[in-house]
Amino acid sequence: MDDRPIGVFDSGVGGLTVIKELRSLLPGEDFIYFGDTARVPYGNKSLPVIRRFSLEISRFLEEMRVKMIVVACNTASALALDFIRRQTELPVIGVIDPGVRAAIKDVHARKIGVIGTVATIRSDAYQARLKRLRADCEILAKACPLFVPLVEENLLDSPITRMVMEMYLTDFLRADLDALILACTHYPLLKPLFPELLGGKVRLIDSAQETAREVADLLIARRIQAPIDRCGTEEFYVSDSPEAFSDIGGLFLGRKLEKVFLEHVWKRSLNSSGTGELNV
Amino acid sequence: MDDRPIGVFDSGVGGLTVIKELRSLLPGEDFIYFGDTARVPYGNKSLPVIRRFSLEISRFLEEMRVKMIVVACNTASALALDFIRRQTELPVIGVIDPGVRAAIKDVHARKIGVIGTVATIRSDAYQARLKRLRADCEILAKACPLFVPLVEENLLDSPITRMVMEMYLTDFLRADLDALILACTHYPLLKPLFPELLGGKVRLIDSAQETAREVADLLIARRIQAPIDRCGTEEFYVSDSPEAFSDIGGLFLGRKLEKVFLEHVWKRSLNSSGTGELNV
Repeated sequence: MDDRPIGVFDSGVGGLTVIKELRSLLPGEDFIYFGDTARVPYGNKSLPVIRRFSLEISRFLEEMRVKMIVVACNTASALALDFIRRQTELPVIGVIDPGVRAAIKDVHARKIGVIGTVATIRSDAYQARLKRLRADCEILAKACPLFVPLVEENLLDSPITRMVMEMYLTDFLRADLDALILACTHYPLLKPLFPELLGGKVRLIDSAQETAREVADLLIARRIQAPIDRCGTEEFYVSDSPEAFSDIGGLFLGRKLEKVFLEHVWKRSLNSSGTGELNV
Repeated sequence: MDDRPIGVFDSGVGGLTVIKELRSLLPGEDFIYFGDTARVPYGNKSLPVIRRFSLEISRFLEEMRVKMIVVACNTASALALDFIRRQTELPVIGVIDPGVRAAIKDVHARKIGVIGTVATIRSDAYQARLKRLRADCEILAKACPLFVPLVEENLLDSPITRMVMEMYLTDFLRADLDALILACTHYPLLKPLFPELLGGKVRLIDSAQETAREVADLLIARRIQAPIDRCGTEEFYVSDSPEAFSDIGGLFLGRKLEKVFLEHVWKRSLNSSGTGELNV
């Protein structure tokens, strides 16, 4: 038993889709969420910058005495997960491995699509893991940078979003995909639109659900679950504008956000040992 | 005469439209440009965060011994211009006053539109200045957050961009505007699309051109022009990914960028006096 909170972070508001799934699986756990709203988005930024920001946030979560860290951001998972693991003794779970495992759970799945930010797709993280676990699979990967601003404009059911989707997914139309990995926490909000374009056969992999399952498994395996018969709490920290985060956060979480606080993670000094790798 | 460089900054790449106009008016001046590509965009961020970032950049430009600072970012001009002026003895020019003056240059202009980022429009900076200079004008203001990502995806002549424009500018269609202020440095790249929707009568105000003219006037008024018969140089500093900046920068500047360097402005300490106003 371990009643310390679980730390979860994202570049902004998208990671709340992971909080939503975690909460429904783990009603007794406390969560501390950090959204880097002053520096969002990460999707067009470089490896050293994403590592630096991710490390600052991990240090903050360690100070908040979390028992594990969930990197709920695809871009940070793709570019900084192993780096963070080397900087902390806490267990660290990202969203990529759960998504990949879910995509190849069906033993017949051979054609797999991956869509995400420019940084996630360019990192090759999903593609390399898929190839490692299923050498003969065929992968179609595509960066879709307009999906995040479209979701943040709440254009979830708009002809504009449908046209953008058609533009990005032209190559996917005749590919006869078995599964499509939604490799960005904003994309699950667009879920209803994909079958319209790609047909109902393609299985949509939502990393949020899969990640929550892995977190639950890890808590049991390490025997660090919260005591049962307990009602979990949530605290949200953001680097800019708690009010704006509360407003748009409701869209992702499906309910009102309480307890949102301002936290400037960049005040933390990163001069301690082991950060030479940052190379920035 | 003063052969020190002129400092110009923006949240990212958009301010290069100002550099382009400055270069064509002032062939003998040296320019030092800073683009905050690690923290771009500013348009959805809050007052204290935009002030903090702008101050860090101004300190960097002062260290580079510039003779004046041009805030080529509409969001930073709207939220941080007076603040920066109180922190430095250098002349500081923003993009808002030049744009407003150009919009009301025509003495008959009564109906004026303003489009920009969420932060710029919400700040009321353009609206308040327009009202001060022409009390009886009617103002239509609208935040258009998708325009920046559309330009950065290079969708300058796409039906998608036309649909987004129609969505944002519905209220402008029957307004019979005299002038439309493009209050974001990305928007001039969409110039050809506005007359299609709004008709050819509306005068489009591109702050980049107007700002360059004000800079030229100030250099003469203060007698700090560069010596004549001199060929000006340019240096570009960015907080992330010089390569990516060079690539997309060419689109804005209309020519290849040389000399692009990495500079992490946030390493600068802001603990010196007078920054209590930051309130963050």
